[in-house]
Amino acid sequence: MFLFIIMHDFKYKDNQLYCEGIKIQDLVNRFGSPLYVYSYNTLIDHFLKLKIAFGEIEPLICYSVKANSNLAILKAVVDKGAGLDIVSGGELFYALKANCPPDRIVYASVGKTEKEIEEAIKRKILFFNVESLPELQSIQRIAKKLKKIVNIAIRINPDIEPMTHKYITTGKLTNKFGIDFDTASKIFLQRSKFPNLNICGIHIHIGSQIIDSRPFVCALKKISNYIEFLKKNNIRIEYLNIGGGLGIIYNKEKPQTAKSFALSILPLLKNFDGKLILEPGRFIVGNAGILVTKILYIKTTPLKKFIIVDAGMNDLIRPALYGAYHQISPLNKKNKKGPLQKVDVVGPICESADFFAKDRLLPQLEEGEYLAIFGAGAYGFSMSSNYNGRLKPPEVLVKGKVAKLIRRRQNYFDLIREQI
Amino acid sequence: MFLFIIMHDFKYKDNQLYCEGIKIQDLVNRFGSPLYVYSYNTLIDHFLKLKIAFGEIEPLICYSVKANSNLAILKAVVDKGAGLDIVSGGELFYALKANCPPDRIVYASVGKTEKEIEEAIKRKILFFNVESLPELQSIQRIAKKLKKIVNIAIRINPDIEPMTHKYITTGKLTNKFGIDFDTASKIFLQRSKFPNLNICGIHIHIGSQIIDSRPFVCALKKISNYIEFLKKNNIRIEYLNIGGGLGIIYNKEKPQTAKSFALSILPLLKNFDGKLILEPGRFIVGNAGILVTKILYIKTTPLKKFIIVDAGMNDLIRPALYGAYHQISPLNKKNKKGPLQKVDVVGPICESADFFAKDRLLPQLEEGEYLAIFGAGAYGFSMSSNYNGRLKPPEVLVKGKVAKLIRRRQNYFDLIREQI
Repeated sequence: MFLFIIMHDFKYKDNQLYCEGIKIQDLVNRFGSPLYVYSYNTLIDHFLKLKIAFGEIEPLICYSVKANSNLAILKAVVDKGAGLDIVSGGELFYALKANCPPDRIVYASVGKTEKEIEEAIKRKILFFNVESLPELQSIQRIAKKLKKIVNIAIRINPDIEPMTHKYITTGKLTNKFGIDFDTASKIFLQRSKFPNLNICGIHIHIGSQIIDSRPFVCALKKISNYIEFLKKNNIRIEYLNIGGGLGIIYNKEKPQTAKSFALSILPLLKNFDGKLILEPGRFIVGNAGILVTKILYIKTTPLKKFIIVDAGMNDLIRPALYGAYHQISPLNKKNKKGPLQKVDVVGPICESADFFAKDRLLPQLEEGEYLAIFGAGAYGFSMSSNYNGRLKPPEVLVKGKVAKLIRRRQNYFDLIREQI
Repeated sequence: MFLFIIMHDFKYKDNQLYCEGIKIQDLVNRFGSPLYVYSYNTLIDHFLKLKIAFGEIEPLICYSVKANSNLAILKAVVDKGAGLDIVSGGELFYALKANCPPDRIVYASVGKTEKEIEEAIKRKILFFNVESLPELQSIQRIAKKLKKIVNIAIRINPDIEPMTHKYITTGKLTNKFGIDFDTASKIFLQRSKFPNLNICGIHIHIGSQIIDSRPFVCALKKISNYIEFLKKNNIRIEYLNIGGGLGIIYNKEKPQTAKSFALSILPLLKNFDGKLILEPGRFIVGNAGILVTKILYIKTTPLKKFIIVDAGMNDLIRPALYGAYHQISPLNKKNKKGPLQKVDVVGPICESADFFAKDRLLPQLEEGEYLAIFGAGAYGFSMSSNYNGRLKPPEVLVKGKVAKLIRRRQNYFDLIREQI
């Protein structure tokens, strides 16, 4: 009836959903609903899978902070040797709070402000992924002012179709990201114009939730040829940052494993003598988290059956924003023996965008029971808001039989803290 | 070159954009960028337009808090006699903080929790808009426990196509909202089953940003007939709540004015002897606010020109979520004499969803100058998040020549306040 082929530590024992060694119903009783629950073991397991798969070349794996920026999550991966991929001054703050060594921090974004650049230079991050010529000029100007030499990776837009949602496609020339090959060449060949920059890296990131290795291979072939071209011009690339974008299983996807991904990628790097950087986010944390929610009302209308839950699109916006699919299942599967029923799972927010599943086959459900929304570890809490005056939920990290509250639930006063 | 037929107090004087009596560039110099700026006069003007248009029947106009829940905005409309339309315990908290008399508060949502219902009953709000039979039973149970008699309006789903975005369509039977006529009749005819409820109102709300009066008229005709049917069964409706959903001008829409809306609606109410409730949100605050943003970089690629600004989809998600159009114009139009150029206006966030305009014709722009994104008063700040580690912007309310900071900019410590 329920088929989970996803590798994670959310499993049923005696028809009760557990996260590692803890029954999730016990967490709900303790911390309330809605509630984000993360598995430490799943998180670290995915990080290590990538680390091992690429082991022979010892890459720096920079976890993508934007996927889930809870400090406990960041600390967990940093403690295992991860670096961090940041995209703002706020994320630099997170990274430093999580005690990430600055020489393991890389910084991407098409819109870095002067203040953010200055802060990152002063903190001595490993390098900036630079997305445009004006940005490069801006970093040069600030580095000069600060009398620093700053490492730069040029983010190249390889013009690749990654076959994913249009909102998370980032490596086509119609996207705002990266620099085309011609402009990149001008920069590399005239790099003496940027005396305070050590332009020594190449960055690509073609999109997110990509389940097939072919777009990666295609992009990397272009980049390998390009690195050869640069070598002929006596330009050595010290850092090759191949970004993130590894897809995970939300529904019935069959994404490449870390191992198969490495097997497709590594042969293309055999002539590369620099450091490889990876920037996985969703791959590491996506299936390490669930959102637990209570069924408030079951509403039968002439055309539909609605399961109305106490979580909303403010807690998890992926279905509304990307039409994303998330597996949903009751915490307690005891006595779920009747036929499946077709339902919409919806939140309390006053717009039709507020749904978690449409026309989904689920077992008979009752008001007051709880559902787990799977695959909510990445781009769940990090995109949450207070829309409809709703309080952000707490987050709990489970490690074996120990559950730790890593973010408390908001209260009403949190909603007006910045108002004078 | 720029044509503004929208009625609001954001106007150019000597090629500089003003909000009422204040040059917006001065506000940016003082409060930084990005920045939300609201016009008090525009806000109140729109409220009064509705109040006057419906003046002969003295409706209770309940401003929809979810559109913009800043306490200063709420206080401004409440001081002019508005009630408030709330959708959660958080919004009840806002309403009470804004000193709204509880007998001017109405509460809608498909997912009211027990705690929220109890709080609202204790505070003696005017009535609940009830969206399902199980919710009605829940309110009866709680009212009985509290030994109270509670006013109820049944939200009827009139099965009307409002011709708006699918995410803000709410009055079709495939939507999660409201109760069909048959079920409503069972409730009204068997209302003695709910001894602690005074089921005395009808609520409809068919969607949002509806620019034509026809769907409203169509829905109201159905409801008028239904009220007649109830009258024949000796059931008197004391409150008729016709919801909100009045469209505004974002681009070239020609929505009905408050006056023409009233002229279409009032004839249908001539036999109704109860109180009319309106729930406008966007209509009142939508064009009373702009989002000001700085141009960080102008990036020319082989296929496109990108204007990269310092505001992102975390500040204003309407373009990403609804494909919404917002007028955009520089604060300073001096020396903007050259030909228009086609550009994408995009934010710094690392996904392609992060845009404010695509293939938009704008005048020649320069890095460092500022843009106004119009029509950002409703569903702007209220949907904002900290995605990508970004700080929420401040809000400023302008009244004549006085600007008041009504929400300070977040700082990095605000981002981790709930983390332990």
